[in-house]
Amino acid sequence: MTQHYETIVIGAGVIGSSIAYHLSRRGRRVLLLEQETIACKASSAAAGMLGAQSELKADGSPLFELAKESRAMFPDLADDLKMYSGMDISLKQQGIYKIARNEEEKRELRHYGELQRQSGQNAEWLEAEELQIREPAVSSQLTGGLFLPDDGQVSAPDLSRAFALSAIELGTTLKEYTKVQSLLIKGDSISGVSTNGGEYQANEVVIACGAWSEEVLGEALDTYPVKGECFSVNTKRNLISGTLFSKDCYIVPKSGGRLVVGATEQPGTYDETVTLGGVFPLIKEAIRLLPELAYAEWESAWTGLRPQTRNETPVLGPHPDYRNLFLATGHYRNGILLSPITGKLIADMIEGTPVPEQWITTATTINQGGVL
Amino acid sequence: MTQHYETIVIGAGVIGSSIAYHLSRRGRRVLLLEQETIACKASSAAAGMLGAQSELKADGSPLFELAKESRAMFPDLADDLKMYSGMDISLKQQGIYKIARNEEEKRELRHYGELQRQSGQNAEWLEAEELQIREPAVSSQLTGGLFLPDDGQVSAPDLSRAFALSAIELGTTLKEYTKVQSLLIKGDSISGVSTNGGEYQANEVVIACGAWSEEVLGEALDTYPVKGECFSVNTKRNLISGTLFSKDCYIVPKSGGRLVVGATEQPGTYDETVTLGGVFPLIKEAIRLLPELAYAEWESAWTGLRPQTRNETPVLGPHPDYRNLFLATGHYRNGILLSPITGKLIADMIEGTPVPEQWITTATTINQGGVL
Amino acid sequence: MTQHYETIVIGAGVIGSSIAYHLSRRGRRVLLLEQETIACKASSAAAGMLGAQSELKADGSPLFELAKESRAMFPDLADDLKMYSGMDISLKQQGIYKIARNEEEKRELRHYGELQRQSGQNAEWLEAEELQIREPAVSSQLTGGLFLPDDGQVSAPDLSRAFALSAIELGTTLKEYTKVQSLLIKGDSISGVSTNGGEYQANEVVIACGAWSEEVLGEALDTYPVKGECFSVNTKRNLISGTLFSKDCYIVPKSGGRLVVGATEQPGTYDETVTLGGVFPLIKEAIRLLPELAYAEWESAWTGLRPQTRNETPVLGPHPDYRNLFLATGHYRNGILLSPITGKLIADMIEGTPVPEQWITTATTINQGGVL
Amino acid sequence: MTQHYETIVIGAGVIGSSIAYHLSRRGRRVLLLEQETIACKASSAAAGMLGAQSELKADGSPLFELAKESRAMFPDLADDLKMYSGMDISLKQQGIYKIARNEEEKRELRHYGELQRQSGQNAEWLEAEELQIREPAVSSQLTGGLFLPDDGQVSAPDLSRAFALSAIELGTTLKEYTKVQSLLIKGDSISGVSTNGGEYQANEVVIACGAWSEEVLGEALDTYPVKGECFSVNTKRNLISGTLFSKDCYIVPKSGGRLVVGATEQPGTYDETVTLGGVFPLIKEAIRLLPELAYAEWESAWTGLRPQTRNETPVLGPHPDYRNLFLATGHYRNGILLSPITGKLIADMIEGTPVPEQWITTATTINQGGVL
Repeated sequence: MTQHYETIVIGAGVIGSSIAYHLSRRGRRVLLLEQETIACKASSAAAGMLGAQSELKADGSPLFELAKESRAMFPDLADDLKMYSGMDISLKQQGIYKIARNEEEKRELRHYGELQRQSGQNAEWLEAEELQIREPAVSSQLTGGLFLPDDGQVSAPDLSRAFALSAIELGTTLKEYTKVQSLLIKGDSISGVSTNGGEYQANEVVIACGAWSEEVLGEALDTYPVKGECFSVNTKRNLISGTLFSKDCYIVPKSGGRLVVGATEQPGTYDETVTLGGVFPLIKEAIRLLPELAYAEWESAWTGLRPQTRNETPVLGPHPDYRNLFLATGHYRNGILLSPITGKLIADMIEGTPVPEQWITTATTINQGGVL
Repeated sequence: MTQHYETIVIGAGVIGSSIAYHLSRRGRRVLLLEQETIACKASSAAAGMLGAQSELKADGSPLFELAKESRAMFPDLADDLKMYSGMDISLKQQGIYKIARNEEEKRELRHYGELQRQSGQNAEWLEAEELQIREPAVSSQLTGGLFLPDDGQVSAPDLSRAFALSAIELGTTLKEYTKVQSLLIKGDSISGVSTNGGEYQANEVVIACGAWSEEVLGEALDTYPVKGECFSVNTKRNLISGTLFSKDCYIVPKSGGRLVVGATEQPGTYDETVTLGGVFPLIKEAIRLLPELAYAEWESAWTGLRPQTRNETPVLGPHPDYRNLFLATGHYRNGILLSPITGKLIADMIEGTPVPEQWITTATTINQGGVL
Repeated sequence: MTQHYETIVIGAGVIGSSIAYHLSRRGRRVLLLEQETIACKASSAAAGMLGAQSELKADGSPLFELAKESRAMFPDLADDLKMYSGMDISLKQQGIYKIARNEEEKRELRHYGELQRQSGQNAEWLEAEELQIREPAVSSQLTGGLFLPDDGQVSAPDLSRAFALSAIELGTTLKEYTKVQSLLIKGDSISGVSTNGGEYQANEVVIACGAWSEEVLGEALDTYPVKGECFSVNTKRNLISGTLFSKDCYIVPKSGGRLVVGATEQPGTYDETVTLGGVFPLIKEAIRLLPELAYAEWESAWTGLRPQTRNETPVLGPHPDYRNLFLATGHYRNGILLSPITGKLIADMIEGTPVPEQWITTATTINQGGVL
Repeated sequence: MTQHYETIVIGAGVIGSSIAYHLSRRGRRVLLLEQETIACKASSAAAGMLGAQSELKADGSPLFELAKESRAMFPDLADDLKMYSGMDISLKQQGIYKIARNEEEKRELRHYGELQRQSGQNAEWLEAEELQIREPAVSSQLTGGLFLPDDGQVSAPDLSRAFALSAIELGTTLKEYTKVQSLLIKGDSISGVSTNGGEYQANEVVIACGAWSEEVLGEALDTYPVKGECFSVNTKRNLISGTLFSKDCYIVPKSGGRLVVGATEQPGTYDETVTLGGVFPLIKEAIRLLPELAYAEWESAWTGLRPQTRNETPVLGPHPDYRNLFLATGHYRNGILLSPITGKLIADMIEGTPVPEQWITTATTINQGGVL
C-alpha cells in the first residue's frame, strides 16, 4: 500500500534537510528520502564558511542578495536548531580575510572591497603589518588582506545533522538508504515517487540532491559536479581567529585547535578519490600562508562533489513543466551558506507565499525543451 | 566522442571482476565500470567461505554442481591471481564444521551428511568428543558436528581486488565512480551504455551489480537484497583451524588470529546500518560455540547486501530479449564461492563456447513479459 | 640547560589539565608534561556523567561534599572555557535516573533518595508509569526510577581538551610525548623532574597521572586501575533526555542522537582491550532498559583505566614527606565530575590558601612508611 | 606468588618476538612481556625493506655481514612462520633501486655499486633509459639508478605478528599491557622483573624494547630515538616492481597496488605526531620520482621511533655487568631486516652456542662505568 505525505523531499543533505525543517516547522507532514545517510556527501565535506562577501562579488546580483539574507539568518537559526535537536552548530562570526600575495592581488582585492563597501557591506583593507597585528601567526611575507568581518563559519556536518534531527523532532519522517528510481508523473504534475523501498505519494515533491539531482530528475538539468579535496590538521592552540582565504586555498579555524584546509576544483568528475596531487599544492599554500602549520598534526583528507550550474546560479523554484515539482540544487561552494534561505524559500513557494521573482531561477536554468 | 570496447562489464565486485579477468585472459578488450570503488559492497563484506557443501544440499541441483566445480577452481586460481596481481588470496582448505546443538539438529545433520556422501562428497560426522579432539577450543556443550573437509575459505576482499587488478594487468580498463544511467538499445541488442561519465559502446554488455543489478537493468528482474551484519575479533592464537557453522552463526578463522563472525539475514532492505539488535545475537551464539571468544578483542562490525532471487538460483546467462546482454547476479551467500565459475561461464557464453544448458538460468529467472 | 618553571604538572588528563588551567588563571608559569597526548586515556574514555548524587551516597562524607561543590562549578566553567579555548563542553543539565528493575532495587533506591533529600538534595521517586511519561522510550518492564534532576553531563573529551587549551592560552607550556623518569629530590623537597626530553626545575610538582600516578611517584601509592569498557551508538532522534543508570549499565544521551553505554568494572589490570565478553552484557542490559536501542547504529567501543584507591577516596593534597610535591589522583569513576574542584583545591594549596582539612587526603591514603 | 620461566623477553616488537620465536623453537619456556600490544610501535611503522645492500656500505663491517646473513634467512623463515602461525609475510625479492637525480649522485652510486661488487654482491648500474625500461613508470628526468637485485621487502606488521604468534604456538606466554618497572638484581645477575602485573622470575632476561630499552634498563644505554614519518597511497595497478630509494625518500610497492613512502629523520624526540611539514617534502619527492603517484589515492600517514646508537651499530649481546641479562636494540632503520639474525644470535648466546666475536657489541656500546 502506498503511503501518502504532504511533501516529499528527496535528499537529506544540508539543502534537503533545511527544506524539511522549514516545512515541518510550518506543520507540514514531510517525508525526507535519502539514498545513503544524512549529509553523507558534500554537506559533510564542506569547510562551513559563511562567505557571503568572500565568495560573491558585490554586484547586486540576486545570488549576492540571497547570500547576505541567508547569512543573517544564522544567529536565530543556531538557537532554534539547538532547541529542537540539542545540537550546537558552532557558529563563529569572526570574519574572513581575503589574502593578497602580491601587488596585483592587492589591487584586485582593494577594488573588490570598494565594491563591497559601496553596496553597504563592511570590508576593511589591511596592510601586511595590520594583518599581522590582527592575526600574528599569519606569514609576514604576504602583501595584505581584505577583512570581511561579517562573514563567518559553522560546523558543516553539525549544521546538516541539526537540520535533519530538528526536522525529525518536528514530525518529518526520514528514510535513509532509500533511492528514488523514478518520479510518478500524472499529466502536468507529480503524484509521488517510486523507490527501492516502494512507492510514496505526496502533494509536492522537492529534488534537493546536489550533484545527483540530474540523475533523479532526468537528463537535461544543466548542472555538473565540481570535485573538491580538503584536509584537516590539529594544533594545541588557536593559530588564527578568522578564516584565511587566498586564491589557492582557504584555512578555516575550527573548535579545539583543528583547522580545515581546502579545496581543489575539478569540474566534471564524480570521482571521490583524495589524490596525492590534489593535497600537495593545498599543503604547500597553507604552509605559505600560515607557516606554523608545518608543525600541525595531520588528521585526515576527504573530498566532496559540489553541484555547479552553467550560469553559476543555483536552481531554485518550481519546475517549468510540473507545477508541484520543486528544485533546489546548484549551490556550488555556497550550499552551507545558502541552506537557511533555500529552506525558507522553497517552503514559501510550496505554501504559496510570494517570493521575490529574481530568486526563482528554474525557468532560466533548466534546459530548453523540458527536462524529463 | 564515444569509446568502443569489445565487452563492457558493469560492476567491479567479485563477480564482475572475475568476468573481466576471464575475458581479459582470453584477449578481449574489456571496460569494467564501477559506480563507487572495487568491491566496495557485498564482496568485501563477505566472510569468504567456500561452502559448496555447507551451504548447499547435495540434491543434484545445477547450483550444487556449479558450486563444487567452482570450489575446485580455487587452487589454480590462487596461483594465477598471484602471478598477475601479486596478491595472495589467503586460500585455506581446512574444512567447515556444521554444528549440532541438540539431538534434532544432530539428526538433521547426519541426514545431510549422508546425502553428501551419496553424491560422492566427503562428509564426516563427529560426536561431541571427536569434535573437541579436532578443535579443542570448541564448546564441550555441543552435540556434535558434520565435518566437510573439502570446503574452505579465502579472504573475500583480497580475492575481489586480485580479480580486478589481474584484469587490469591483462588489459581491462577500469572506470570507478562511473554510474550507468541507461543501456543503449538498438533493436534486439544493446549497443552500449550511457553513464555519468559519457557513453561507451561495446559488442556485449554484462550486468554484474549484485543487489543493484535490477536498478541498472530496469524494474522486473526478480531479485531482492538480503542484508547481513557481521563482526570481527582478534586473538593472539589460532583458536580453530576449520570454520564453525551453526544455524545461528558462523565463525571463520582468518590469518593472524582474526576471526569473522556472521551473519544476520534481513530480506528486502537496502539499509546498510549495523544495528545493536543485529550484532547482539551473533555475539551470544559465537561465545556459545567458542567460549574463549569472550576474551577476544573487538575489532569492527559491518554489513553487506546479498543479491537473492525468488527461486534461490543465481541469474546467469544471456537476456532473453537482448542477444548480447548478459546477466550475472543473484549469488546470495555464495558470491565468493561462485565467482570463478561465473567468470568462466560468462566468458564462454560471450565467446560462443557451449555451456551446460542447466547452468543458464536467465530464461526462467527473468520475469515473464520482458525486463526492460 | 635546565629550564625553570613555577609549577610542573605531570599528566594532561582532565585532572592535570584542570590544575594547569587553575594555576595559569592565577598567573603561575606552568609546565604541563604528558607522556602521550592530551586526554589520551581515561579522560577521553569517560561517559561524562556529572553524577554527584547518582554515584555517591548522601552520607555526609567529604567526597560527597566535594562532588556537589564541583558539580556546581560547571555552568560558570563552561562559559570560561568557551572564552579561553573557544570550545563548547556540551554541558547538559537534564538529570540522571537511577533505575529499579525489581522490588528490591526499588526499596533500595527509595531509601537512597530519602537520604539524598534529607541532606538537602533534590531526588524524586518515579513509579514505572511516571518514568514512562517523562521518558517514553524507556522500557515499560521496569519497576521505577529515582530522578536526580541536578546531576548532568558534559562531553568528557571536550572538557579535557578545553581545560588544556585554555591553560595553554593562559600561558601554560604543554610538552606531549614527554615521560617523567624520576623526581629530582633535594632533602624534603622536589627540585624538578627528569624526563626523556631532559630535566625541568620548578618550585612545586603535581602528579596527576590517574592510574599511572604510582608509576611516576614510586611504588607505595595505594591505588589500582579499574578497567572499564564502553560503546556508543547513533540514532536519528533523541531517545532520552536524562541519563539512565541501572546497576548493570548506564546510557548517556549525547548530542546529535549519539548515546554512550558503559561500563564494565575489572579491577587490577592495565589491559586496555575491548573484549567480546565485556561488551556483551552491556548491550544486553542497554536494550533491556531502552528497547529501541536494538535499532540503533553501532558506532565503536573503547576502554578506560580508572584510578581507584583502597579506601575509595581520591588522593588529594601535599605529599607527607615532600613539602612541595602534590598528588591528585584516585578519582575512580568521578574524574570528570571532580576535575573543577580538584583543579581549584590544588591551586589553593600551592598558593597557600586555606583548604578544608577534610578534603586533604594524602596523609591517610599514602602508605605508612613513605612512598618514594 | 611469583611465576618462573626460563627466559623473559621484554618487548614484543619484531626483535623481541623473533627472539621469543627462536628460543621457543629450541624448546625454551619463554615469557614475552609487552607494555602495550604486539608490534604497536616502530615494527608496524616500518616499510619493510630488506635493504642489506641499499642501507649499508659494503665496507666489511660486522653490521654489513650481519645484514647479508639475515637477509638470506628470509625465504626459509617465510615458510616456517607460515607453518606455525598461518601468516604470510609477503616476502618480495624484486630488488631495490638506489636513484641518482644528478651527476654527483650518479658518481657516488657508481662507486657505491663498485664496492658492493668487490665484496661479492650483485649491483648493477642502470642509465636513465635502462631504468625506464625496467620500471617504465619511473620519471624520465632521473639520472639513473643502482639496482640491487638481492634486496627485497616484507610486510613489516605481518612479519612482527607472525613471529609473535609463532612463538605463542611454540609455547611462549605473551603478556600484553604489562610494563616492566624494574629488573630484580641479585649480585651479578638478574633474577627476574617487577611489572605492573606482578613479579616474574627467570634464568635469563632479554631487553628488546627498541627506543624504550634505555628506560627499561636504566639511564646510561647510549641510544636515542630517531622519529620517522611515512605515508601510503593506493593505486589500481602495480606501478613499480622494485623499491625506489633516493636520498630524500623511498617508495616501497606493497601488495594490491599499495605503496609506502618514507621517511623523515628527526633524532632525539619521542614525539609521535605526523606533521604537515614532515609529509610535505616526502610527497614532493615521491611525485618527482614516480610522477603517476600524483593520481594515487591518499590512504594514511604514521610515525615510528627507530632506536639508533651513537656508534651506529646495534646493541647485541650480554650485559657486561650482569651475566644473564641480554640486550638487543639499536637496529635503527634495519630492525625488520636484522630481526631473524638477531633472534638467532641471542638464542645462541643464551644457549651457550659460540657466536662470532665481532657480532657481540654490548661491551663497546654500553657506556663506561656500568649501566644500571
